Amino acid sequence: MTLETGADLRAIRERKPLVHQITNYVVMNETANATLALGALPVMAHAPQEVEEMAAAAGALVLNIGTLSEPWIHGMLRAGHAANGAGVPIVLDPVGAGATAYRTATARRLLEELEIAVVRGNAAEVATLAGEEAEIRGVESMSAAGPELARSAAKTFGCVAAVTGPVDHVSDGQSDYAVANGHELLASVTGTGCMSTAMTGCFLAVQPNALQAAAEALVAFGIAAEDAAAGAAGPGTFHAALYDALAALDPETLDERAKVE
Amino acid sequence: MTLETGADLRAIRERKPLVHQITNYVVMNETANATLALGALPVMAHAPQEVEEMAAAAGALVLNIGTLSEPWIHGMLRAGHAANGAGVPIVLDPVGAGATAYRTATARRLLEELEIAVVRGNAAEVATLAGEEAEIRGVESMSAAGPELARSAAKTFGCVAAVTGPVDHVSDGQSDYAVANGHELLASVTGTGCMSTAMTGCFLAVQPNALQAAAEALVAFGIAAEDAAAGAAGPGTFHAALYDALAALDPETLDERAKVE
Amino acid sequence: MTLETGADLRAIRERKPLVHQITNYVVMNETANATLALGALPVMAHAPQEVEEMAAAAGALVLNIGTLSEPWIHGMLRAGHAANGAGVPIVLDPVGAGATAYRTATARRLLEELEIAVVRGNAAEVATLAGEEAEIRGVESMSAAGPELARSAAKTFGCVAAVTGPVDHVSDGQSDYAVANGHELLASVTGTGCMSTAMTGCFLAVQPNALQAAAEALVAFGIAAEDAAAGAAGPGTFHAALYDALAALDPETLDERAKVE
Repeated sequence: MTLETGADLRAIRERKPLVHQITNYVVMNETANATLALGALPVMAHAPQEVEEMAAAAGALVLNIGTLSEPWIHGMLRAGHAANGAGVPIVLDPVGAGATAYRTATARRLLEELEIAVVRGNAAEVATLAGEEAEIRGVESMSAAGPELARSAAKTFGCVAAVTGPVDHVSDGQSDYAVANGHELLASVTGTGCMSTAMTGCFLAVQPNALQAAAEALVAFGIAAEDAAAGAAGPGTFHAALYDALAALDPETLDERAKVE
Repeated sequence: MTLETGADLRAIRERKPLVHQITNYVVMNETANATLALGALPVMAHAPQEVEEMAAAAGALVLNIGTLSEPWIHGMLRAGHAANGAGVPIVLDPVGAGATAYRTATARRLLEELEIAVVRGNAAEVATLAGEEAEIRGVESMSAAGPELARSAAKTFGCVAAVTGPVDHVSDGQSDYAVANGHELLASVTGTGCMSTAMTGCFLAVQPNALQAAAEALVAFGIAAEDAAAGAAGPGTFHAALYDALAALDPETLDERAKVE
Repeated sequence: MTLETGADLRAIRERKPLVHQITNYVVMNETANATLALGALPVMAHAPQEVEEMAAAAGALVLNIGTLSEPWIHGMLRAGHAANGAGVPIVLDPVGAGATAYRTATARRLLEELEIAVVRGNAAEVATLAGEEAEIRGVESMSAAGPELARSAAKTFGCVAAVTGPVDHVSDGQSDYAVANGHELLASVTGTGCMSTAMTGCFLAVQPNALQAAAEALVAFGIAAEDAAAGAAGPGTFHAALYDALAALDPETLDERAKVE
């Protein structure tokens, strides 16, 4: 299967899918702006009174547990069930799974109660959720073990796992992609992981194959980061340039520039 | 009636009015920074325990339902009643009215229970709230019908309606302004509508005529957007430049540069 | 006692301490990015279910009441008790103390129930909390009375008081520092006070002497502001440049550049 990042970016810009995001307070503005800059339409809504209506009308649903609390988990579950009922794909970002028992348990609960299309996290988060074996080996070894971790997590979760790091590994349990696009300045700005999850939601809204959508999102976001880094003097100017670069992504050149295996 | 955007901007910078904002999570930082850059003082407070004290001490109150939930609606109502009691003008931003029943009902409730000075929204939001007739014609026709929509909404709401878009239309039901300042990059950054609502709050704090205050806010914000776009390479650098441009607005030239009919 | 800002910045970058922040909605992204840019690791978590675990694992805890509500106060108290139990230093930012009775009472409650290492606020906030005498003299006289205010507040609170303004005054009730680093553009961006509190958390995580940590944080942040202002065209570009400048701070030159008495 060949990635078609350029064609799918074109589809995003033409169809402008609504991407419903229930995400954390820290990055709401950032993921909304990244979504807009890519070409989709972000909407943030978390109240139980409206999430079902919003999720069912969306092209994709993004769930992110970065600053979770009980009312928000309640909203995520209601939105998720509505999305599942309406055939709207869900991407889950298990921010901080492993850091506290509450986060780990909440991420597991969302994975169990909802049909998730893609889990997008870093190696530590995904390893925690993928269970004992991964934990025993320790998080330090995870980046080396990226392809295996993604594959094993995908099998455990029964969905696509996208494990991001210096090289991103995306797997559905059978097929895999390794995406080497990106830039180290991404690690110096908070919420860039959350943004890559939002990008995954945008691609899921136009690309029914979740493995392909997840890999394409990381290609597009990684290339934008490369472009943004070119003129940046540090994390602040990189951050501003990242939105410029997302908006300027050229669908014609994305597939050539993709560093994918 | 002639707009006096320059004189009122000068008054904002001299008096530095406190603008109390109960707004959405996505744009809080952005509207606070836009308020500061213009020359006023933003304060965000939503807890029922303190909103009455804060609203009564403010020069204007901004209510924005972009990420609403029950506790926040409760805070908005309490703040709104306190503002009404103290003669503090209120501007309402009905973000997403029409997108979910909850948002439509909440915006209507705020309009009914409180005395609102200005409603600032896009054509779809205002048309939804202005009722059946507008809805029947459909949102697509709204931008063409901008002047009529603003006038009819103003009559329905019994307050000033500011309908923003490529050209902004502001009406009190009898007199109208069309403001053509602005730049298309505004649509590529989330929260620029919310910022224009915050700017409306700033002008309401110094200009007792709500029609004039609403139009002046859109002139000033539109001119800042034009200036910011001049050196911007995309939405990210435009966003940063927008605060520079608001801070650099020259009261001497605003009235000449206003594109108002 | 001589400040060792350079050595402590080096320690922050080497150890990358986790700085747990329970802060306001307006500045969460900003304080997280400032923390990352300096070289530490921010984490935001406010739910009672997880704050104890997070605070106990952190190098410092930052409490900021800028958009407070009952559930958040509950989270702050639980986190604070866990931090105290684990020997994790706490810095408190009493945003808006004096503006409403709720904020004043909440700040006092946190000061009474928790063992706070540093209170970082502006003159009006600290004077309100430091009690009657300060209040009687009025806030206008506070900046002149900065050294006295910091010393008297430190005695009243039984902790270090860091009173920021054009010149910052830091005292433990016996020894004092006056820090003259900084730039007036800081006042044109919302949340720069909150950022300086977050920076104080970063230095507290590596420097056990709270007086020294508080003064060093203000030296480092002030120098970054000076660097950021150099190329800024206004508050928006200054804001972006501030993160670049924090990331580029050179430990070798900080102590020479410090304007400390």
